Amino acid sequence: MSEKKIIVQKYGGTSVKNPERIKAVAERIKRYKDKGYSVVVVVSAMGKTTDELIVLAAELSKNPSKREMDMLLSTGEQVSIALLAIALHEIGVDAISYTGSQVRVLTDGNFSNAKIAGISTDRIHRSLAEGKVVIVAGFQGIDEDENIVTLGRGGSDTSAVALAAVLKTRDCEIYTDVDGVYTADPRVIKSPKKLKEISYDEMLELARLGAGVLHSRSVEFAKKFNIKLHVRSSFSDAEGTIVMPTEEMMEKFVISGITSKQDEAKITVRDIPDKPGIAAKLFNELGTQKIYVNMIVQSTGHDNRASISFTVKKDDLKRTIDICNTMNKDFGATAIEFKEDIAIVSAVGVGMQSSYGVAGKMFSILSEQNINIEMISTSEIGISCVIDAIYAELAAKVLHKTFIEAQ
Amino acid sequence: MSEKKIIVQKYGGTSVKNPERIKAVAERIKRYKDKGYSVVVVVSAMGKTTDELIVLAAELSKNPSKREMDMLLSTGEQVSIALLAIALHEIGVDAISYTGSQVRVLTDGNFSNAKIAGISTDRIHRSLAEGKVVIVAGFQGIDEDENIVTLGRGGSDTSAVALAAVLKTRDCEIYTDVDGVYTADPRVIKSPKKLKEISYDEMLELARLGAGVLHSRSVEFAKKFNIKLHVRSSFSDAEGTIVMPTEEMMEKFVISGITSKQDEAKITVRDIPDKPGIAAKLFNELGTQKIYVNMIVQSTGHDNRASISFTVKKDDLKRTIDICNTMNKDFGATAIEFKEDIAIVSAVGVGMQSSYGVAGKMFSILSEQNINIEMISTSEIGISCVIDAIYAELAAKVLHKTFIEAQ
Repeated sequence: MSEKKIIVQKYGGTSVKNPERIKAVAERIKRYKDKGYSVVVVVSAMGKTTDELIVLAAELSKNPSKREMDMLLSTGEQVSIALLAIALHEIGVDAISYTGSQVRVLTDGNFSNAKIAGISTDRIHRSLAEGKVVIVAGFQGIDEDENIVTLGRGGSDTSAVALAAVLKTRDCEIYTDVDGVYTADPRVIKSPKKLKEISYDEMLELARLGAGVLHSRSVEFAKKFNIKLHVRSSFSDAEGTIVMPTEEMMEKFVISGITSKQDEAKITVRDIPDKPGIAAKLFNELGTQKIYVNMIVQSTGHDNRASISFTVKKDDLKRTIDICNTMNKDFGATAIEFKEDIAIVSAVGVGMQSSYGVAGKMFSILSEQNINIEMISTSEIGISCVIDAIYAELAAKVLHKTFIEAQ
Repeated sequence: MSEKKIIVQKYGGTSVKNPERIKAVAERIKRYKDKGYSVVVVVSAMGKTTDELIVLAAELSKNPSKREMDMLLSTGEQVSIALLAIALHEIGVDAISYTGSQVRVLTDGNFSNAKIAGISTDRIHRSLAEGKVVIVAGFQGIDEDENIVTLGRGGSDTSAVALAAVLKTRDCEIYTDVDGVYTADPRVIKSPKKLKEISYDEMLELARLGAGVLHSRSVEFAKKFNIKLHVRSSFSDAEGTIVMPTEEMMEKFVISGITSKQDEAKITVRDIPDKPGIAAKLFNELGTQKIYVNMIVQSTGHDNRASISFTVKKDDLKRTIDICNTMNKDFGATAIEFKEDIAIVSAVGVGMQSSYGVAGKMFSILSEQNINIEMISTSEIGISCVIDAIYAELAAKVLHKTFIEAQ
């Protein structure tokens, strides 16, 4: 077993999109090697490779077998690992590439969306002990019959975190095309601040709000195994953002991020009898139909009747209305209403837990701008408000100004 | 284990070069399935995929690691098997794809040019018994440490023959972009005849003469395991040519093929002392330097001195001359001469063994055209003559006319 400190680095598709970028990645890895690290690298498929393979398959079938899609897509990462190994050899760095199968990234076998159950470290430790950089294909694993499976969206991040976990290191760098996590979307807020640190829970909340750089599963995995994820850019040497346990954070902002999300729609089921089980029935049925419900608010009305409002992805709106209408034969609601032009603006921050009045302040700020709040939902580290879509940008700007810039 | 008759089919790169061609291959497989066969399919990488991957690697290194090149190139076949499985599913044919690793195509581990040592048939038989078409990635295998290795040029043909051998079937179809083996190159002879049958040895001789549709190794393998190779086109339903044991052939032609080859050069080492060991030293050295020597002729001269003429690939000529010059310090030859504008015209035929005077007849035909023969070499089933390159086409035409068209 290697005596050196192990670091796991993951390079995304844009970081290895062409031979020039692959050479740059090799140079970066060399610097870590020269500093004395044992380096384990996870790479994604080059640039648009995965999309191109999906297009090829689509020309053959509208509904291709998941097993065969995994067989197909896993080649993208295999190309990257081989090329990166070749690039490292060229600059005098000993390196060896492994597929998911070769280091036995064992999964639950759920094609196209598998969960990692374990990774064999023998071969990795042996190669590290020989002074080699170990390059592992991300996004892929095998089931018990050695069928190739892929890990779903953000899968390579999860591969990297899982490797850090089994190799017992807390150091995991995620190289991507942004240089960290910001307090807001730079397309909305002119100069958002880059966060030095962010907690797992804040990162998960951001992912849920569609503003995350990382996919939830990799963050959950990192939280579970207490791994520090350094999100940074492969195009610069700037420090990025470290995703870490709350208790280790040097500075906890009350609000560390403002998001606004416009891909959801609101549905209101009006005046249903206020008795137990009706909401359960509705949301169970939506769950069964694989419709993801984000916010839910129930308000008591009059005559023992209540209204339930909730949001779903705009793509799922039509199906959701159909389900509501069908179920309403039993419910007896007076109306099924929907609104598509909404925005969900949210403030996320772990410091909210120890700070009073954040919600109140948020409502005041929006009200000062005459922005009507149609729904509110709160969690321990976030407050979300549904507002009219035309105010999405304005709301984000005033919230960012008050909570972040003035902080 | 399946009760049905097993057939192994191999489809080359042009046969699966795009989704349309893959669909056509799927339809063809379906017809065999409908006829009651258990079908095992080997596919190559799509069209120019392998070349494109080689170009990518070349941008990173002039001398990439063979292990990593095998890791890289094996993805080409993996893409093909997945897409073919998807295409088969789409037309209602149950099918499953396997990488070389998944069916344990165990090799000697010689990266980029491995030899197959064995294939595990359990999984293949199980899938066939389930009524599935089994699609295996050609050109690839693994070593004992599960490193991915490739089989070198013509590797997918060898994969197919090896599968036929371990599955104990003699039926192996090799689909390519030509519809069989012809008596001559159609670019030289206007209407060569397609052979219904050809023996392993003739096919090997044609491969050696650069005129083979199949690579030598797959033919040697087929000979060893007594497998009938049906070489045919995936673009038509025409019967192709069956490569088979001589003793099973219905019709044995004295001459079944005329070839002419212009990519070699002749070297003559003149007047070296006619004593044992000198030729051995020279050709051992050329072998060590990986220079392939095709024809060798030694002629005794005067004063106990002899001249040796031999041919090598034109690409190797410069290195060969350098080696000869260096070694000549010990030999004391009077001259090292070479000639680049030569052609090797050959007549190949298993019937030659039982037919007298073929060589004499060949020399007469060439002499009637005033074509000077500079070197002659004969084997049991072939006669080759080195002539001036300008007569290459003429020689092939007159030989084809006399030996084949008049036959």
